[in-house]
Amino acid sequence: MGYAPSPAWSPVEAAIEAFLAADATGRMQRYIDFLRIPSVSALPERAADCRAAAEWLAAELRRVGATRVEVSETGGHPIVVAERIEDPKLPTIVVYGHYDVQPGEPLDLWKTSPFEPTIRDGRILGRGSADDKGQIVIHLNALEALLATRGKLPVNVKYLFEGEEESSSVHLEAWMKANPERCTGDAVIISDTGFFEGNIPAITIGLRGITYLQVDLVGSYLDLHSGAFGGSIVNPANALAKMIAGLHDADGRVTVPGFYDDVIPLGPADRAAFAALPFDEAAYLAAIGPASVAVGEAGYSTVERRGGRPTLDVNGIWGGFMGDGSKTIIPAHAHAKISCRLVPGQDPAKIGTLVEAALRAAAPAGVTIEVKQLGDGHSFITPLGEPYLEAATHALRDTFGSEPLFLREGGSIPIAALFQQELGLPVVLLGFTPPDDNAHAPNESMDLANFEGGIRAVVRAFDAVAAMGATPR
Amino acid sequence: MGYAPSPAWSPVEAAIEAFLAADATGRMQRYIDFLRIPSVSALPERAADCRAAAEWLAAELRRVGATRVEVSETGGHPIVVAERIEDPKLPTIVVYGHYDVQPGEPLDLWKTSPFEPTIRDGRILGRGSADDKGQIVIHLNALEALLATRGKLPVNVKYLFEGEEESSSVHLEAWMKANPERCTGDAVIISDTGFFEGNIPAITIGLRGITYLQVDLVGSYLDLHSGAFGGSIVNPANALAKMIAGLHDADGRVTVPGFYDDVIPLGPADRAAFAALPFDEAAYLAAIGPASVAVGEAGYSTVERRGGRPTLDVNGIWGGFMGDGSKTIIPAHAHAKISCRLVPGQDPAKIGTLVEAALRAAAPAGVTIEVKQLGDGHSFITPLGEPYLEAATHALRDTFGSEPLFLREGGSIPIAALFQQELGLPVVLLGFTPPDDNAHAPNESMDLANFEGGIRAVVRAFDAVAAMGATPR
Repeated sequence: MGYAPSPAWSPVEAAIEAFLAADATGRMQRYIDFLRIPSVSALPERAADCRAAAEWLAAELRRVGATRVEVSETGGHPIVVAERIEDPKLPTIVVYGHYDVQPGEPLDLWKTSPFEPTIRDGRILGRGSADDKGQIVIHLNALEALLATRGKLPVNVKYLFEGEEESSSVHLEAWMKANPERCTGDAVIISDTGFFEGNIPAITIGLRGITYLQVDLVGSYLDLHSGAFGGSIVNPANALAKMIAGLHDADGRVTVPGFYDDVIPLGPADRAAFAALPFDEAAYLAAIGPASVAVGEAGYSTVERRGGRPTLDVNGIWGGFMGDGSKTIIPAHAHAKISCRLVPGQDPAKIGTLVEAALRAAAPAGVTIEVKQLGDGHSFITPLGEPYLEAATHALRDTFGSEPLFLREGGSIPIAALFQQELGLPVVLLGFTPPDDNAHAPNESMDLANFEGGIRAVVRAFDAVAAMGATPR
Repeated sequence: MGYAPSPAWSPVEAAIEAFLAADATGRMQRYIDFLRIPSVSALPERAADCRAAAEWLAAELRRVGATRVEVSETGGHPIVVAERIEDPKLPTIVVYGHYDVQPGEPLDLWKTSPFEPTIRDGRILGRGSADDKGQIVIHLNALEALLATRGKLPVNVKYLFEGEEESSSVHLEAWMKANPERCTGDAVIISDTGFFEGNIPAITIGLRGITYLQVDLVGSYLDLHSGAFGGSIVNPANALAKMIAGLHDADGRVTVPGFYDDVIPLGPADRAAFAALPFDEAAYLAAIGPASVAVGEAGYSTVERRGGRPTLDVNGIWGGFMGDGSKTIIPAHAHAKISCRLVPGQDPAKIGTLVEAALRAAAPAGVTIEVKQLGDGHSFITPLGEPYLEAATHALRDTFGSEPLFLREGGSIPIAALFQQELGLPVVLLGFTPPDDNAHAPNESMDLANFEGGIRAVVRAFDAVAAMGATPR
């Protein structure tokens, strides 16, 4: 990714700035300590590390002055909850983040070890530095600075930090339903997004949903000699390739029957908003790879394809001999992980079922097929004009000195839809990662100017909500 | 594979039987010692084991009475050569085998450890027990028994045991050209094939050729977040699936332009010979997998598809996230190993070039493609009526009590074509493995009745060649 210098940020009140100046070294050390814990939620062998990250977070929350701090069981990785209720008459903000991270692999492409955080050139490198531990640490520092200087917060806050966001948040919904009091309030701030190209502050107002599945084809009990058997039976790797190839047509549209049935089409206003984004397509493509070209569903622009249209992608594929040299086998089995990004109108569970049905229908005689649904999440939209969105907009503008863009992004944050649809709360995605953060990739990093500005923006957002007066509920 | 009882075998002369009876335990111990050495030629980390297997073999050849024993360098794994020249007027047989083996993986499917040979139910289990160490040991025991009892051989013999057969014999041809005197004679016996379904002795008179390549697609510098990028750029795993899917048409024919141009079509006699084989297709399919069906190139039978027609198969495919759970990435790269089995008329290097060209033509804009040619070998035919084939036929009939079948098999033994085409020698494939040997798969085994009969058949084959009288050269 190309590097664009971070924007400057404007200081907040002098007492808070003095506190933060005195705590600069300690703040960075705590950030590093948190990143060192390899809390990879997708890997069963990292379960103890996930728990360690939750315990670290709980201890920090207690230290800075949160109350009712709890590491709460979910059946999977725990959820860390805490709160600071100043006055029942003040609005209550629910702050969401996640302490789990993506795997570090492939390790050989990191400049540094993913779990040995390193500060370099105004950035901190390490898995989770941006997605999403760095954003949790921003909130912890804002809370600490406010309590240390003012002795209280301008609003009530409830913190909810989960440990399975990178694993489709499999236990979150059930936990929220079992613990409604810990996650309800007047509005939700989710800090798991970031700035736009060129380091322009941004608020993501739309997110795609997701459904993720694995397909397993078995052709034979054992790998077979490709000479003795080749040509006379189904090769599951060839069969899988053909099945995957059939999932798109020549126009880049997904061929799964019913896939587009419930899609709310992009209207003229939506398309105008996409067209207005200061998007540098040539720079976008040049940063991706040596031969990148803009391709996708016919009839849509690149930003529309990324944020406004549904997709189907192979996330991984494997089968047979993957080592050096040659091994002359017909693989006994072949596998793929396939996921779809979804847009408003599409139901993730329904799409998962449709994709599964299409795969089963495409599997040829001669193989057995198994399909595992590995999780899903709804898409999300924040309506323009939402008062809490206005408060966040003020905080970003005042901190970073330019008007934030409103984005519809391609990623998925299942909890956004969960808060909005299940609990009926306004949700604002107030995030601070730089656009070149390498989330989910080697050399993930956070720009320290974004990090420092983020602390000030959270302070300003709380003050802006308080200035709104009575809660809308 | 279904298990069929091995045929009985007829003893040879009393003195040899007495010697072999006395040596029964020692013979089995040496077999086990040889199988213990994990001489996997495809794995760079097994190079020292390949050399150890070569040294073991050289020591055995010296012990039993071979002369000019040498572990000869090739630039890769060494070739072991030896000889026993009794009289320049006698015909000279060149005996070929290979001491390298396939990888043991997947280890969890073995009943025993692949390199801890185990005798069970009249069989010896272990990687290489059939393909091909067991057949080398047959020759060593026949040589030892003949010299120990008669003091000399009825023919001259040169032994050539290579260490790269499972890696496309990459250095063999150059070595043979550099060392013509070590590999020329009057005829070649290659012992790397086996019996037919039902344990009917067989001589393979046809083998398919091979060309093997690896294709590497790169889409991006790093794995990309499937939400942020999905739908807007080429996913190399999807692209690879589409490229592979396009390599066959709906009739199971390979679509690579020019692929069939040089194929010598199966004539009425060829098709009659295939049709005459006592092939139990239902049993064949049932043994392969739970859902196996007979599929392949339209217009051909299963035995024709296996032995008489060319193929294209994926031997391995990989890219992106292959672990447990879900990781939401667009893979940066995707890879496949692809090989073709070839028939008489097809030139392996030419076909490799055609497949590479077809893959390059099919790669979409947005990815870079690299293709590596990983080795090839010519197809092979032994003409019916060849005198050395007659001698081998007698030896099998007299030892195992039934007329051997003449087969055209699907596998590839590049050296067969090399001896035939480059050196102009008659080549006979005299092999002893049972049809359910699991070569290239977990639980490879040799039937000990085939092993013992094989020793007697080699003795009889040498005597039959001597009885032919003057050498045909």
